[in-house]
Amino acid sequence: MTGQRSDARRNYQRILAVAEAEVATHGADASLEQIARTVGVGSATVRRHFPTRQALLEAVFQERVENLCERARRLSGTDDSRAALLDWLHGLVEYAVSARGLADALAYEPPTEEPAPHSCGTALEEAGTPLLQHAIRDGAVRPDVTFHDLRTLSVGVALATEHHSKPAAQADRLFRLAVEGLSPAQGTTTA
Amino acid sequence: MTGQRSDARRNYQRILAVAEAEVATHGADASLEQIARTVGVGSATVRRHFPTRQALLEAVFQERVENLCERARRLSGTDDSRAALLDWLHGLVEYAVSARGLADALAYEPPTEEPAPHSCGTALEEAGTPLLQHAIRDGAVRPDVTFHDLRTLSVGVALATEHHSKPAAQADRLFRLAVEGLSPAQGTTTA
Repeated sequence: MTGQRSDARRNYQRILAVAEAEVATHGADASLEQIARTVGVGSATVRRHFPTRQALLEAVFQERVENLCERARRLSGTDDSRAALLDWLHGLVEYAVSARGLADALAYEPPTEEPAPHSCGTALEEAGTPLLQHAIRDGAVRPDVTFHDLRTLSVGVALATEHHSKPAAQADRLFRLAVEGLSPAQGTTTA
Repeated sequence: MTGQRSDARRNYQRILAVAEAEVATHGADASLEQIARTVGVGSATVRRHFPTRQALLEAVFQERVENLCERARRLSGTDDSRAALLDWLHGLVEYAVSARGLADALAYEPPTEEPAPHSCGTALEEAGTPLLQHAIRDGAVRPDVTFHDLRTLSVGVALATEHHSKPAAQADRLFRLAVEGLSPAQGTTTA
């Protein structure tokens, strides 16, 4: 029994690892058949673990989204709230670039709608909002910036650089420019 | 002869106006048959003016891209180079949001590749670069900001807000945040 369970667990982890690589390359259109071939199992085995494409994608995103949420909790204890927030956002942008399907999924889930309780967007918001609030309290971020602004900008730089020759470097550069400001107003106070 | 020519010209203008509205709503997937029905002409008439979907899209974009280029030339005489650049970029973001196909087209045309001589991206770059250079000379924009940065950020906020309830307002808000900076570094000089 234990052997069978640990075999199944190993299979699940191998399928998930290959699925992550396929989704990083092909986005939400990743082929389940290709994933099965690369792992060296039958399509039926993949479908037993992930009955639908959506289930597979959620599993692929969930692992990394959970990592991001865990990272936010660790960073929330940092004294330098600006560095903590920017560090976390850097990771979010990096992941949105590497996991093409996630940027699409977040773009299609408008933040003003009723949030889905288990969605990636909701999990990220719950994890990232304390970092933003801390940075605003410390005067490091404009008080009118919302988590949705940060999320939408992250998704935007990921989508806009998808077809560039170096998406990750370009997206990171653009997000840093947005953080620093392309042209901060001179001699005025921010509202 | 003159009557026939001006009839053809009027038809062309009516088809183009309807096509702009259809592309604004449905993006690059706009239906040529629907355009013909709305104008009240046959599909053959639409195809005589625009033999391919690509030809139609280019015509739809060209008119507004030329307006943006003309606007850049007018603004280049303005003393306040920062206001001139931001005014122009505001128009670019607004147009990228309203003409969904254009944002896609620009996103798919990586700026590092050999630029196509008559592409929308090349025309925008030639028109917008003098405004950026002027603003950099006046110290209003960081010297390391390139036209491609501005273009990619504009496209990014358009793509990321496409499914929001108020795309134009959201995209404008995000671009302004990027201009002012989410969190400008405090007490350091920009490199």
